[in-house]
Amino acid sequence: MRKVTIQACADIALVKYWGKKDEVLRLPENGSFSMMLDGLTTTTSVEFDEKLLRDEVTIDGEKIHEEQKRVVQQLDRVRELAHVQLFARVTSQNSFPKSTGLSSSSSAFAALTVATTRAAGLMLTQKELSILARQGSGSACRCVCGGFVEWHDGETSETSFAETFLPAEHWDLRDIVAIISNDQKNISSSEAHQSAQTSPFFTTRVKKIPEKIANVKTAITEKNFPKLGEIVEAEALEFHSILLTSQPPLVMWYPGTVQVMYAVHALRKEGVLAYFTINTGFNIHVLTLPEFEQVVAEKLKNLDLVQKIITSKVGNEPKEL
Amino acid sequence: MRKVTIQACADIALVKYWGKKDEVLRLPENGSFSMMLDGLTTTTSVEFDEKLLRDEVTIDGEKIHEEQKRVVQQLDRVRELAHVQLFARVTSQNSFPKSTGLSSSSSAFAALTVATTRAAGLMLTQKELSILARQGSGSACRCVCGGFVEWHDGETSETSFAETFLPAEHWDLRDIVAIISNDQKNISSSEAHQSAQTSPFFTTRVKKIPEKIANVKTAITEKNFPKLGEIVEAEALEFHSILLTSQPPLVMWYPGTVQVMYAVHALRKEGVLAYFTINTGFNIHVLTLPEFEQVVAEKLKNLDLVQKIITSKVGNEPKEL
Repeated sequence: MRKVTIQACADIALVKYWGKKDEVLRLPENGSFSMMLDGLTTTTSVEFDEKLLRDEVTIDGEKIHEEQKRVVQQLDRVRELAHVQLFARVTSQNSFPKSTGLSSSSSAFAALTVATTRAAGLMLTQKELSILARQGSGSACRCVCGGFVEWHDGETSETSFAETFLPAEHWDLRDIVAIISNDQKNISSSEAHQSAQTSPFFTTRVKKIPEKIANVKTAITEKNFPKLGEIVEAEALEFHSILLTSQPPLVMWYPGTVQVMYAVHALRKEGVLAYFTINTGFNIHVLTLPEFEQVVAEKLKNLDLVQKIITSKVGNEPKEL
Repeated sequence: MRKVTIQACADIALVKYWGKKDEVLRLPENGSFSMMLDGLTTTTSVEFDEKLLRDEVTIDGEKIHEEQKRVVQQLDRVRELAHVQLFARVTSQNSFPKSTGLSSSSSAFAALTVATTRAAGLMLTQKELSILARQGSGSACRCVCGGFVEWHDGETSETSFAETFLPAEHWDLRDIVAIISNDQKNISSSEAHQSAQTSPFFTTRVKKIPEKIANVKTAITEKNFPKLGEIVEAEALEFHSILLTSQPPLVMWYPGTVQVMYAVHALRKEGVLAYFTINTGFNIHVLTLPEFEQVVAEKLKNLDLVQKIITSKVGNEPKEL
């Protein structure tokens, strides 16, 4: 059995996944849509080794304990599929700060799933990988795909998977993350998901998601950036409205998050096309076109509450290194 | 005819007024509930003078033009009631920055309404004053009352008025405003109100308001501060969720607004009972009890994004100076 190393992109959800209709299978309340980011990656090596007495997991250079259980559960799923009894050595490195709202668990569980299945000798289809990755971390099901990706919510495990809507080559968009802080979030996404239904607005939101995804797909197909940007920015604010109205309320933004929002609005007033979006966290993504990348990057870098920026192009599916 | 000078308090809405079912009469979509603030006042003098050839309005030392029309319309309403034909000299001074989300129009139109009616020789009941003030600026109808005040939404002009639920003496609460900026808001409340119905969540919010007001009244009656604070803070976040999901979205918070939110949460973790609320703007109110006033004030003053603080006790009805 060989050691396999896989690099997977994290993604930025243009229409967010929030709330689960099945906690164990991680079936989402609604479909979602995202774009892979080549600048935010997780590189994971997996090797099954008969000499090991238990699974060994190292993330970003540290033996981990807290995330250990979810990783081992994912290894177990693969072991069961592949009829493998051995323990594994897992080494994972993120190119960006984890647990800060940058979807590190999506790239991590995509890389882990692909690496583990290959190390176990399985040859799965992308759909099978997506279904398997989803059970480790919901949005990881998107990150086994490349480009612009839709996750069909589905009513069963077999029908809840992601697929590429259009490949990365279709449209050269740029995503600039403004890192506001490396603080660990005070609530994990998994925990926070469970509060989705406590927002009085959640049902109304869920009903309107299919139309929103359809509009995003049209904007991407037509390469209509202002149309896409307006939907995406409004969606991020709507998503955070659900967080703000959950019980207890979840205030995720930091002062710097808001500073970036105003900077983005100021850029648009100057004719620079840029739109923000935010996941469950304080770090904030700014989408723009190649011709505006430099001016947006300069603007964000110079904000006093922004620590650093990370620029991405649209990413591809996981690749073996 | 004599010159009359009235000082009226601004208020902090514990359950917010948002959206109008009648634009001209300023009938609100929902009832609301507020607390008068003795530290935020408008002092207004009105004198009808046969020598004047037109109304003269001075606010904070400046002859004003933009707000002129609304003030003159209010003078006209009183002139019609009192059968007065003369023009008036109006001089108004705010103790706090106007158009920054601190409800300056509520204290201003309360003071104007009371001063103008008295200067015109009318003796109106508080209910009549409330109905009249409402037509000048919706929430001004609350500021002709004292203490803890409820505005009944009503279906007609005669049934949409405010009254004192309990007087200021009932409960010694403190409100500390953190002034983040003196910027003028980029959208007036009057304009923003018109977008209320564009939020997909607005209808759901309106339906739940009567229950929320009932809960606030119970908490005030029982003097249960944590219960009141939790409702009030959640209500502020819900209100801003409506703003964030309006079309176009309204992001009102500044970085400093968020800094204060985190400071308030940090205080609560230390056992200091303090809860925030925010109107349409970036400046932010923190409610607390007398025994915590000093520690809350110190904490807020020391935040780098807070310019200054203004502390209030619960205020009374407008008084003649």
